[in-house]
Amino acid sequence: MEYKYLKTRKENSTLWVEIKNQPVNFLTVAMLEELFDLVKQVCRDDSVRVFILTGGLEDIYIMHFSIPELFTLATDNKKILLNLFVKSKITGAVLKYITTYTNWLMDWFGWYETLMLKFAKIMSGYSSSLYLWFIMQRVYFAIERLNKITIAAINGNCNGGGTELSACFDFRLMVGDQDFTIGQPEVLVNIVPGGGSTQRLPRLIGRAKALELMLRGNQWDAQEAQRIGLITELFNKAEFKTKVQEFADLMSKRPMTAVDAIKKCVHDGMETTLRHGLSIESEQSIRCLDTEDTINAMQAYIRYLDEHVNPIDRQKITTEELNHIVQETVKHMEEGKLYKFK
Amino acid sequence: MEYKYLKTRKENSTLWVEIKNQPVNFLTVAMLEELFDLVKQVCRDDSVRVFILTGGLEDIYIMHFSIPELFTLATDNKKILLNLFVKSKITGAVLKYITTYTNWLMDWFGWYETLMLKFAKIMSGYSSSLYLWFIMQRVYFAIERLNKITIAAINGNCNGGGTELSACFDFRLMVGDQDFTIGQPEVLVNIVPGGGSTQRLPRLIGRAKALELMLRGNQWDAQEAQRIGLITELFNKAEFKTKVQEFADLMSKRPMTAVDAIKKCVHDGMETTLRHGLSIESEQSIRCLDTEDTINAMQAYIRYLDEHVNPIDRQKITTEELNHIVQETVKHMEEGKLYKFK
Amino acid sequence: MEYKYLKTRKENSTLWVEIKNQPVNFLTVAMLEELFDLVKQVCRDDSVRVFILTGGLEDIYIMHFSIPELFTLATDNKKILLNLFVKSKITGAVLKYITTYTNWLMDWFGWYETLMLKFAKIMSGYSSSLYLWFIMQRVYFAIERLNKITIAAINGNCNGGGTELSACFDFRLMVGDQDFTIGQPEVLVNIVPGGGSTQRLPRLIGRAKALELMLRGNQWDAQEAQRIGLITELFNKAEFKTKVQEFADLMSKRPMTAVDAIKKCVHDGMETTLRHGLSIESEQSIRCLDTEDTINAMQAYIRYLDEHVNPIDRQKITTEELNHIVQETVKHMEEGKLYKFK
Repeated sequence: MEYKYLKTRKENSTLWVEIKNQPVNFLTVAMLEELFDLVKQVCRDDSVRVFILTGGLEDIYIMHFSIPELFTLATDNKKILLNLFVKSKITGAVLKYITTYTNWLMDWFGWYETLMLKFAKIMSGYSSSLYLWFIMQRVYFAIERLNKITIAAINGNCNGGGTELSACFDFRLMVGDQDFTIGQPEVLVNIVPGGGSTQRLPRLIGRAKALELMLRGNQWDAQEAQRIGLITELFNKAEFKTKVQEFADLMSKRPMTAVDAIKKCVHDGMETTLRHGLSIESEQSIRCLDTEDTINAMQAYIRYLDEHVNPIDRQKITTEELNHIVQETVKHMEEGKLYKFK
Repeated sequence: MEYKYLKTRKENSTLWVEIKNQPVNFLTVAMLEELFDLVKQVCRDDSVRVFILTGGLEDIYIMHFSIPELFTLATDNKKILLNLFVKSKITGAVLKYITTYTNWLMDWFGWYETLMLKFAKIMSGYSSSLYLWFIMQRVYFAIERLNKITIAAINGNCNGGGTELSACFDFRLMVGDQDFTIGQPEVLVNIVPGGGSTQRLPRLIGRAKALELMLRGNQWDAQEAQRIGLITELFNKAEFKTKVQEFADLMSKRPMTAVDAIKKCVHDGMETTLRHGLSIESEQSIRCLDTEDTINAMQAYIRYLDEHVNPIDRQKITTEELNHIVQETVKHMEEGKLYKFK
Repeated sequence: MEYKYLKTRKENSTLWVEIKNQPVNFLTVAMLEELFDLVKQVCRDDSVRVFILTGGLEDIYIMHFSIPELFTLATDNKKILLNLFVKSKITGAVLKYITTYTNWLMDWFGWYETLMLKFAKIMSGYSSSLYLWFIMQRVYFAIERLNKITIAAINGNCNGGGTELSACFDFRLMVGDQDFTIGQPEVLVNIVPGGGSTQRLPRLIGRAKALELMLRGNQWDAQEAQRIGLITELFNKAEFKTKVQEFADLMSKRPMTAVDAIKKCVHDGMETTLRHGLSIESEQSIRCLDTEDTINAMQAYIRYLDEHVNPIDRQKITTEELNHIVQETVKHMEEGKLYKFK
């Protein structure tokens, strides 16, 4: 598949993806389609360890979802009976269960996802609604669960669909010295943030702030967004790319098995009870322990520790010295100096 | 129904409700009863877009729940076998499921709610416990799900029942320059915050802070409460009413369909899995897209955008200019200058 | 059971438990075993009202879980088919449900817990994996649900297993002036935080920060940890023990019934829907109202209030005076001056 809106660039083991849709990067279905194709590829590409999405226009990240495309949805919904959702409590409840389990089946069976997306795509000539919901929810799920470190590098204003997309990433890094803002202004045109933010934001930053952000529909400056935990870190514009690359390079030293396992534990575990969540954690623990990398890394850790404690008489070593050695060892592991993961 | 403890006042499309119960606004069952009646009316009143609850005595919001009324509960519980809740694990589990599903049935069927409340009211001469639980839980649910913007305007100390009631509102605005405090001191008299705070606070501000607040039973100053996200904004006493009214006037420009839909998505979606939550979001999206208001608002948005971009040669326009125009358009929508919602 | 790694000390109604495992307090299975035995005893000991865990070596809390013990798990897992967890989606799902319900059964039936732990212990000669998971999950559950106030007094660096253990406590107090850090560096050796942090951290401090902490694997200074809500309060090293003891003495004035009830409401209520959570809250409310302590405490509260309002002409009393009296009464209750709970 050739990309019209995405430009990819590899730097070390980081894949930079630039979104470019003149004039101000409105999000479109075609763009989501390309993104879905790309993410599926990246998932299988072992040479990529960090996945970065950023805006491909100067000072522009993603403005918001394309309004003309949203327009067409209104009339489209009726064509394929999607308005049964709101016809009555009963038909609404039934449709909600059907869509929930369809999503669940698509998670378990890759072929079913492919089939459903093809079907919805064929239908999209008649009504584009179904395809938009499907492709959007599938690509957002795919990014959230990607077996790599994922970074939204927010290099400009970020509204609506842009914020929703960013909520699926592990880290949100933003330019902090340019008065750029982030927000969910959907309420201003009488719609809900329909790309997952009503669900992901309360889970990310708590119900109080999420509700405030979506009901006010106002724009939050980068500093405030960082304070409430929506943005991970701020960098100045002049050094933004460099800083993001440094962050990515450090994170690319993390082992992909554990990264994937931790994301699974957190995302799946928050959907269920603590008890079931702990079983998911045990499963992922065993998965990680079952690899050669783990044994080697632990050995590297212990070896370094031993080497630096041994020379000194173990009886005479002070707590301060010991403390210092352990801290230093962890620091070295963090920077990937003691062991390189596959 | 004539109100003894509530005084209502309409200002623009905002309904101010002042709670007044000499000497320091203790919360009582009679007060909750009036509030329930009022909220049900407001729900059907299209002329009200913002619902504000505030204290009707100078410098007093809601002190806490009436201790004498709590007193009577202790002996009352036994009369109607509510102490089966704590008799054994089995009877406790059974009663918990019964009350859960009773609440669920009352949500689905309005007539069932009316019936159950009447029944509990009749019983209340014999034992007031059942009626207190019912009316309290139902009015708190009703406020939380009200199809308007809801604001708790905290103009004095806020303790116990006052904090619990406020936790059901979309926004909590508080006087910040008067050493007023907010807290859940129930633990100090050996009870739990029984009006929903053990459930709503962890969901609003996270488990760590909620547990701390309730176990310490101490009083948090307004600044700290804002820092942890419990309070949305602080205003000085001198300008409190004006500022709250300004906030309400701005929020009254929001479309009520989207406001209601966003609240449904957030509150219902957090009760279930991400997948099911996304189905709720889709349902509410379709509901919003299905209205005339939405189409008109989107058109107003695009029109303004076009008008301000067109005059300039689209090829020559700089990112900065474009960025500025979009931001300005959103700002205008936010202030309701481009379209007035029904 | 005689303790090798734990040293207990009683101060007023506070039990201090010092963990001591030369050279830097690595967490081991034997230590968890002792802790489990101790916590079970403390649970039945009415003379203990506050349970504090701290490091028994100068400037050392808990470094992290013992790497050599983790080593053995890797090969052990296969022996007892625990790698079925990761063999296929189906066997994984089955095993996850089995372990979830085993934990649930152990919660309901104490004898089943004892039996399962004995069985796992016997098996541990052959494979130590099963026993580690069981004892770790059970002791962490036991601490989280302990019917006392629990405090992790973090007097040094706190990593990995130390952070996981601390996440089960009601309060985390930390030395703030010594450059001590807290973190989850598991990812650095390709494992997940397998002692519950992938589940408890997102529930405590939100998904965004929890994911960041675990994926970066870096070390957070005490100030940052407090800012995000992981640490309750910071004290200087010189006065750490005194300050923690003061905090404990104040908290020991809280009634144990309400403390236990609030913890149950919060922990159990967050695992289920709001509606079911409210039923749990009602259950615990009734449990608390059903005690003599509650009646007496309420009477003490009202008596003090009356005594201080009565002398003044009730008609002439100003809001400010009334406000002040109520605030002062709550303050006195907080400090246990008006009533001493059993």
